Amino acid sequence: MPQHTAGAPLSEDAILKILARHFPATHPSLLLGRGDDCAILKAEQALCVSSDLFLEDVHFRRAYFSPEDLGHKALAVNISDVAACGGRPLGFTLGLGLPRDVDVPWLEAFFGSMAALAGKYRMVLAGGDLSRADRLHISVTVWGEAISAGAPFLLRGGSLPGDSLFLVGLPGLARVGLQELEAQGRAALAQWPAACAAHLRPEPQVDAGLMLARLGLNSRPPALMDLSDGLIRDLPRLLGHTGELCEGGEGRRNRLGASLLLPQGLLHPEVVRHALEQGKNPVHEALLGGEDYCLLGSCAPDILPILHTAIPGFHSIGVITDSGSIDCNNENLDELHGFDHFAAEDA
Amino acid sequence: MPQHTAGAPLSEDAILKILARHFPATHPSLLLGRGDDCAILKAEQALCVSSDLFLEDVHFRRAYFSPEDLGHKALAVNISDVAACGGRPLGFTLGLGLPRDVDVPWLEAFFGSMAALAGKYRMVLAGGDLSRADRLHISVTVWGEAISAGAPFLLRGGSLPGDSLFLVGLPGLARVGLQELEAQGRAALAQWPAACAAHLRPEPQVDAGLMLARLGLNSRPPALMDLSDGLIRDLPRLLGHTGELCEGGEGRRNRLGASLLLPQGLLHPEVVRHALEQGKNPVHEALLGGEDYCLLGSCAPDILPILHTAIPGFHSIGVITDSGSIDCNNENLDELHGFDHFAAEDA
Repeated sequence: MPQHTAGAPLSEDAILKILARHFPATHPSLLLGRGDDCAILKAEQALCVSSDLFLEDVHFRRAYFSPEDLGHKALAVNISDVAACGGRPLGFTLGLGLPRDVDVPWLEAFFGSMAALAGKYRMVLAGGDLSRADRLHISVTVWGEAISAGAPFLLRGGSLPGDSLFLVGLPGLARVGLQELEAQGRAALAQWPAACAAHLRPEPQVDAGLMLARLGLNSRPPALMDLSDGLIRDLPRLLGHTGELCEGGEGRRNRLGASLLLPQGLLHPEVVRHALEQGKNPVHEALLGGEDYCLLGSCAPDILPILHTAIPGFHSIGVITDSGSIDCNNENLDELHGFDHFAAEDA
Repeated sequence: MPQHTAGAPLSEDAILKILARHFPATHPSLLLGRGDDCAILKAEQALCVSSDLFLEDVHFRRAYFSPEDLGHKALAVNISDVAACGGRPLGFTLGLGLPRDVDVPWLEAFFGSMAALAGKYRMVLAGGDLSRADRLHISVTVWGEAISAGAPFLLRGGSLPGDSLFLVGLPGLARVGLQELEAQGRAALAQWPAACAAHLRPEPQVDAGLMLARLGLNSRPPALMDLSDGLIRDLPRLLGHTGELCEGGEGRRNRLGASLLLPQGLLHPEVVRHALEQGKNPVHEALLGGEDYCLLGSCAPDILPILHTAIPGFHSIGVITDSGSIDCNNENLDELHGFDHFAAEDA
């Protein structure tokens, strides 16, 4: 057991020993675990891979994120990308830049919470890198496999006019949590418990993604993505209007649109209450809300009934059109914009 | 083409368009490239995977690293981990936290240099994440495959007493470069060109790693790792005395040792000159030198002649013993310690 007391400086070896107690080093998907230059993955079938940064004072503040919250969320938002491909998460690597005030109790709480989420999905920590840093810095790369050998991953493209649009989970709650945590710190948990939980401890929709992939075996696979920047910013990506990491460009030739029906009654009560207290439109607030890690997708309308039955939290929210624009409850939304890390700070 | 001028704020989409011009989005090893929630790798055989952080003012300073140097080194040090497993690099993901002063010319230079190195090894950028950050932050996850289906990756373990120890490349040069760049900035390039180049633009030893893996097909595979923290700190890892990420613990039961022969005449002239100018022992300085990204390994002595012939930069430097300790040129080195990120700053 480590000999350190709270606040004492930590050696790299001491940190690695704490980590080793929380994360098993072997896994059926690994030929070689941590400790060498690389980990070695069995990889007998296709793998989906995603990387995310999670940086202090950019993506989170330690003023209201506990170490348990951080350990959970840093991994959860990455697992969500695997879920959005209909994949089964297998493993991850962790890059961790630690400020000097991080001590043993902090690391125990952080690793413990991350290990609990990894264990829930039977994922292995396959490697990573430790460093000093001024601010807490977490980078995760995650990978997963398809539900069975040869089964498809679910992609963003492929929607057709007439397809049904759906969500698994509901948008807007995490943004309310963010706003109230920024304003009040953790005192916000008393008045906005669901919203704060949505922001601090999002739950990736792995089971729903796997269920959607299973359906894709017998019919046209659903289009699927996760909501990280808000429905109003992410929906155009599902429609192929804009692309992340390199698919941008001349997508405007694509004339897919969407007509949403999102009645206020469908929204979480905390989202409605928060918007009304601020004199804002609850539906607009829900559409703008980022970091929900809901799944957003489209499918042929004939499989809607089975999805409603099979997937908890499944909601039909409209149809794919050929209009090239997006409306919600008969209001055109082309002027409503979601979150851009760079635009937000440069404005 | 982007419309931005130097210093103008950059949107995320503008950054992604620059990136897209430098990095092709398709690759024989990818079923799906950038732009979706995950990239999808074909993965018909085992993959080796590694992640590294590369953080401003921890791992580098922009005072003397040009954007071209940074784009090269951030990827090179990750490729080196694949080389150290005898693997062929295939692809990588890139997490990039950008301060506000990063502009279009900076990004063009950074991406251009990274893309040149990726192109040299035919690697694909499969995805990643962009964010604002106070300081430049680069995290890379890299993967590769074995030289042929079913061929082994080369691991750190497996040395036997009597095996020959070898290096590909020579240690100490990058540390001289670091010290002089810290002292003089880029003016150091005039007086210490090889040392500065070794620190700013290390070349991963991919061809040597593949050649060693090829030899491993017909005989006991060599043990192999790359030198990132200095020979004196990394050699105990090859011997199994200490482990990174979770293999630490009770390794002292392992009684492997090493007897090195590292004549001063073998060292790079800039290493010798630098040590002598400072009144230090050139061999000690070489043993302490970190970030060399040489390969360090051991093999049965009977394959030494073919390795000498086949691998440029190959040097025998001693033998594996059963003494449990390390000596060099008949001097015991158990008191000499290499670099620890955490110990170094906390001391």
